[in-house]
Amino acid sequence: MNRQSLIDQIRKKKSFLCVGLDTDITKIPQHLFATEDPVFEFNKAIIDATKDHTVAYKINTAFYEAQGLKGWSSMGKTLDYIPKNIFTIADAKRGDIGNTAEQYAKTFFDTYPYDSVTVAPYMGKDSVTPFLQFPGKWAIVLGLTSNEGSRDFQLQPSGDGLLYEKVLQTVASWGSVDNTMFVVGATQKEQLERIRKIVPDHFLLIPGVGAQGGDMATVARTAMNKDVSILVNVSRGIIFAGSGNDFADQAAKAAATYREEMESYF
Amino acid sequence: MNRQSLIDQIRKKKSFLCVGLDTDITKIPQHLFATEDPVFEFNKAIIDATKDHTVAYKINTAFYEAQGLKGWSSMGKTLDYIPKNIFTIADAKRGDIGNTAEQYAKTFFDTYPYDSVTVAPYMGKDSVTPFLQFPGKWAIVLGLTSNEGSRDFQLQPSGDGLLYEKVLQTVASWGSVDNTMFVVGATQKEQLERIRKIVPDHFLLIPGVGAQGGDMATVARTAMNKDVSILVNVSRGIIFAGSGNDFADQAAKAAATYREEMESYF
Repeated sequence: MNRQSLIDQIRKKKSFLCVGLDTDITKIPQHLFATEDPVFEFNKAIIDATKDHTVAYKINTAFYEAQGLKGWSSMGKTLDYIPKNIFTIADAKRGDIGNTAEQYAKTFFDTYPYDSVTVAPYMGKDSVTPFLQFPGKWAIVLGLTSNEGSRDFQLQPSGDGLLYEKVLQTVASWGSVDNTMFVVGATQKEQLERIRKIVPDHFLLIPGVGAQGGDMATVARTAMNKDVSILVNVSRGIIFAGSGNDFADQAAKAAATYREEMESYF
Repeated sequence: MNRQSLIDQIRKKKSFLCVGLDTDITKIPQHLFATEDPVFEFNKAIIDATKDHTVAYKINTAFYEAQGLKGWSSMGKTLDYIPKNIFTIADAKRGDIGNTAEQYAKTFFDTYPYDSVTVAPYMGKDSVTPFLQFPGKWAIVLGLTSNEGSRDFQLQPSGDGLLYEKVLQTVASWGSVDNTMFVVGATQKEQLERIRKIVPDHFLLIPGVGAQGGDMATVARTAMNKDVSILVNVSRGIIFAGSGNDFADQAAKAAATYREEMESYF
């Protein structure tokens, strides 16, 4: 999906919500285990319940990989089931040398036809550019992540700024706003302002809002630009909003609440 | 496999060779496509041909992932086929927040029972420590990689040193020499000396020797310690040494040549 189509969907739905399908098999409702593929049945119900409220689904590949072949099969079926007007993200955080990065691009753009994949920047330019060669496909590169461990390296000084700032600056120069986004787990005003100075026009994928404590109002008011250009991810706060037979209804309610708040910032 | 067993294997075989199974389906001999699983048949023949010369196999997961379910199946069969006295590495370069890193640890230590997995450090402590909780299993964390892109961030100043030096120092403090190794694609004497000052006792996984131009003698003389503690990886230089019906014989010859050179440094 290209940039303009994504922006159009965001404006149409008045939503910049991304639902994270971190489908932990140990947390899905018991009654689904009577079906042949409980993970897919869960995702199917979640997608049906949330598709009117969200503009993107982010599949956290680790939860599928851990289940082996069965998990990759559930992942493939889930990706297939997502309506084509909704942006898809393989949250796989791959990063390797050129010839290997090409194989990962093939994996997530071709074998599994996602719109985008998250990419780790540590190995530098030749680990990222193979993801930038596919029209309408995106590399979503880690900038500042929302976890405690972001302090270990990302928030350490590097030259005149911090490492993650150097990453944003450098990676932005390798591609364009049409094929590169950044993961920024920032929910503080000052940080978001600094990030928007470095990458004013890029799409930002922002986790850590909601259940993890981030403040949606601050994020929206500080990080939105004239094309909106943010996707705010919520995973557990939506997909595990309920745990009983009505889990899909609970997920729909949670997603609707997030979308309604988002609409107020348009 | 624990540290002592690995050292014992290295001393017994007088080899610190790791064979990289970067099995690119477009490069394997044509006659194998008559079989049901050409990638596995190729790997099986390579393992039979090289197992007496090598102490480790490194499976580059990207080449398998790109083939979807079929690829993961070939990977699982290959891992199963590797003799139990040979150390196995999932070269997967994963790295994510704690609950997701746990899923990756499950993937590569349990669902697919590797001895070790390569891990990217950018997301910090909680992205690495979940891999350090399994007795006899290892996280092999990226320090300095051998590609051009290592200059973009790894070789940039960070505090008093370079980023990769800070990574080695910091990550070493999270685990021990019994559960942490480092990828260092260094083949220059000065660099290896600096690395050995920071992590004198850790195992180092060293790619970039041989076909990629690194000098084995320098690596061996500079990076070996009293327990040897290096694994030198060769992928294409062995597995694609030949391309015809005799590909396995050619691989055996190439592996034997590497091992013989290694023996001279013991």
